Amino acid sequence: MALVVQKYGGTSVADIKRIENVARRVIKTKQAGNDVIVVLSAMAGETDRLINLAHQAAADPDSREYDALISTGEQVTVTLLSMVLNRLGYKARSFLSFQIKINTDRAHKKARITKVDTRKMREELKKGSVLVVAGFQGVDEENDITTLGRGGSDTSAVALAAALKADLCEIYTDVDGVYTTDPNIYDKARRLERISYDEMLEMARAGAKVLQPRSVEMAKKYEVPIYVKSSFSDEGGTLVTKEDKEMEKEVVSGVTYDRDQAKITVINVPDRPGIAARLFTPLAEHNIMVDMIIQNASVDGFTDLTFTVSRKDVKQAAVLVQEAANDIGAARVEIDDSVAKVSIIGVGMVSHSGVAAKMFTILAKEGINIEMISTSEIKISCVVKAKYTELAVMVLHDAFELEK
Amino acid sequence: MALVVQKYGGTSVADIKRIENVARRVIKTKQAGNDVIVVLSAMAGETDRLINLAHQAAADPDSREYDALISTGEQVTVTLLSMVLNRLGYKARSFLSFQIKINTDRAHKKARITKVDTRKMREELKKGSVLVVAGFQGVDEENDITTLGRGGSDTSAVALAAALKADLCEIYTDVDGVYTTDPNIYDKARRLERISYDEMLEMARAGAKVLQPRSVEMAKKYEVPIYVKSSFSDEGGTLVTKEDKEMEKEVVSGVTYDRDQAKITVINVPDRPGIAARLFTPLAEHNIMVDMIIQNASVDGFTDLTFTVSRKDVKQAAVLVQEAANDIGAARVEIDDSVAKVSIIGVGMVSHSGVAAKMFTILAKEGINIEMISTSEIKISCVVKAKYTELAVMVLHDAFELEK
Repeated sequence: MALVVQKYGGTSVADIKRIENVARRVIKTKQAGNDVIVVLSAMAGETDRLINLAHQAAADPDSREYDALISTGEQVTVTLLSMVLNRLGYKARSFLSFQIKINTDRAHKKARITKVDTRKMREELKKGSVLVVAGFQGVDEENDITTLGRGGSDTSAVALAAALKADLCEIYTDVDGVYTTDPNIYDKARRLERISYDEMLEMARAGAKVLQPRSVEMAKKYEVPIYVKSSFSDEGGTLVTKEDKEMEKEVVSGVTYDRDQAKITVINVPDRPGIAARLFTPLAEHNIMVDMIIQNASVDGFTDLTFTVSRKDVKQAAVLVQEAANDIGAARVEIDDSVAKVSIIGVGMVSHSGVAAKMFTILAKEGINIEMISTSEIKISCVVKAKYTELAVMVLHDAFELEK
Repeated sequence: MALVVQKYGGTSVADIKRIENVARRVIKTKQAGNDVIVVLSAMAGETDRLINLAHQAAADPDSREYDALISTGEQVTVTLLSMVLNRLGYKARSFLSFQIKINTDRAHKKARITKVDTRKMREELKKGSVLVVAGFQGVDEENDITTLGRGGSDTSAVALAAALKADLCEIYTDVDGVYTTDPNIYDKARRLERISYDEMLEMARAGAKVLQPRSVEMAKKYEVPIYVKSSFSDEGGTLVTKEDKEMEKEVVSGVTYDRDQAKITVINVPDRPGIAARLFTPLAEHNIMVDMIIQNASVDGFTDLTFTVSRKDVKQAAVLVQEAANDIGAARVEIDDSVAKVSIIGVGMVSHSGVAAKMFTILAKEGINIEMISTSEIKISCVVKAKYTELAVMVLHDAFELEK
């Protein structure tokens, strides 16, 4: 008998009919002799409805209250699925974070899970119940409700799977797996049968929306196999797992893009210690995430510093950076919010030289200027003008023969 | 400095604009130098929306899940009011039952509060915060969410006031106090300045909808003064308090009616021990509340037994009673679901003979036949044909000079 954790996203529980569809999948898994823990998101649109209410109440709503408000969305879906399962003759019980104890730190809106108590869940599983657990939420040490950020239910599911040493964590969504690139942008995109944690992580970070990056980090850390599938079909699926010898070592396994990028350049920065700290500390204090950072080689004691932030943060960031630039005596600050990041990802890259050169050549051939470059062991990202996003994705997908 | 508990009902928090109106009242009370605890219901209509979802999920939804579902309505309003108060510069924090610990028994949908932990609330009050507490809900010893039944937020407010020994419990609603009768039925209805717990209790039980009877019982037990007011006006109000010498000892202080009545008569019941138990036990087992019970004097060892139930229960009750009637050898069962109960209430009744006779005479003069009578020390109730409800209320209101 295996223990399976299944997570269903907002579109899979958007109304009672779809919740009944979820119930049928749960029952099938249960009838196959497995113990099942289900983790749910809120009904599609519900979290946005609640966020809208919060912003009617206050332009900048108190974050403790905000979390307690939006966590009601998952409370609704878990109780409804439990009702349907009970009606169909399967013992099911909903659980909120405070009932299980899923503890997090106190960082409202983007809390991190610190501890999952498995005692109550094991007791309930022993009684033969299906456990239906509210995703996306936790409680801090004061029993205040916290939420884990967009896509946080993925992390909830992996955290439960890790804590209970589940055999499998299935993530049901509205697509049938992980693709070599976004099929909405390029119809030659191909579904991957398997992908390593590291590749998935880079893909998620580089803009692929199928899994929350933190859920992949956690899955890697605790070696929880994740199976990404569609809740609307029995076909397809992608297994996210640790790298092994049998895994096809593609040089490049995916092309991703992220349009939520804005570029900020500080020109003629005096090149002395403490300058970077002066620039980036105010951003951190305002919770503005910086993605790529590039610093040119210093010429005559001056350098240019370029970095990217999310487009929604660019206005606030510009103000903070301009202040810092004045302080440190930089020449000026330039903003460009019409850029995008295009990345190629693959574990095989490590052992193949020339991948980066090939990427740059292909983009150059299409007349696409590369404005920033950043690399990791298994990823190369280029910032380009936003209007070239689709073109760049397509030519890279072709050049690295991802359609197979 | 006084401690004031304020409860606002669903129409008072129906949208953000009304929640802002509530915030202004809270701030006014706070500025007058009081500590304030606010208890809220769900937005008007929200609980019904959630109940409808539950009934889409299952005809007879699991009651543990049902309570966890509908308790989200209050979670939404308490967080929104806290956001508004914080925005306006007043420290406010929302609290759910599990965070304070408001403990109840395990009777889902109609749980009773067993214990209120005051430690957390006192701590927060010391910090100068306004506490905004979700009404209508509690947690049982397993930390399962329970609800207190319709109007349960009144009971939540009184329970907090009692536990914290608050100076006053204000119940804000959409009417400006307690009236001698329903102003929608009779425009001569007069608002009462004061009313005793016992009278209020009889009124609530006899059909007046302004306060949940259990909240009045609890207020009486712990001597919590309740002030019933409108959240839409500064005028009016009725103080519900213990009887004292200064209180005007009206013979009759109010006329109430309850249309949710159906009459069941079991004809020719053999008059022997155990018969009543055989009739009423199945009803209790099916959670059917019996209101009035009348048994005629026995003639030749046979008697007729008449009682009333809520109209929504009459079909199920009829089946159960028919079974029992067959068992015990009664002649037949008669059902009449077009009756209503009209009651007069007043503490002065105890010391004034002839009040009942006067009531019967007045009804008779209008040709209203009395089908059942029941009395307590401070109340006389008559069951009459439903079509006479308004007429009975008006002639009794006139005869006992309630318009003053």
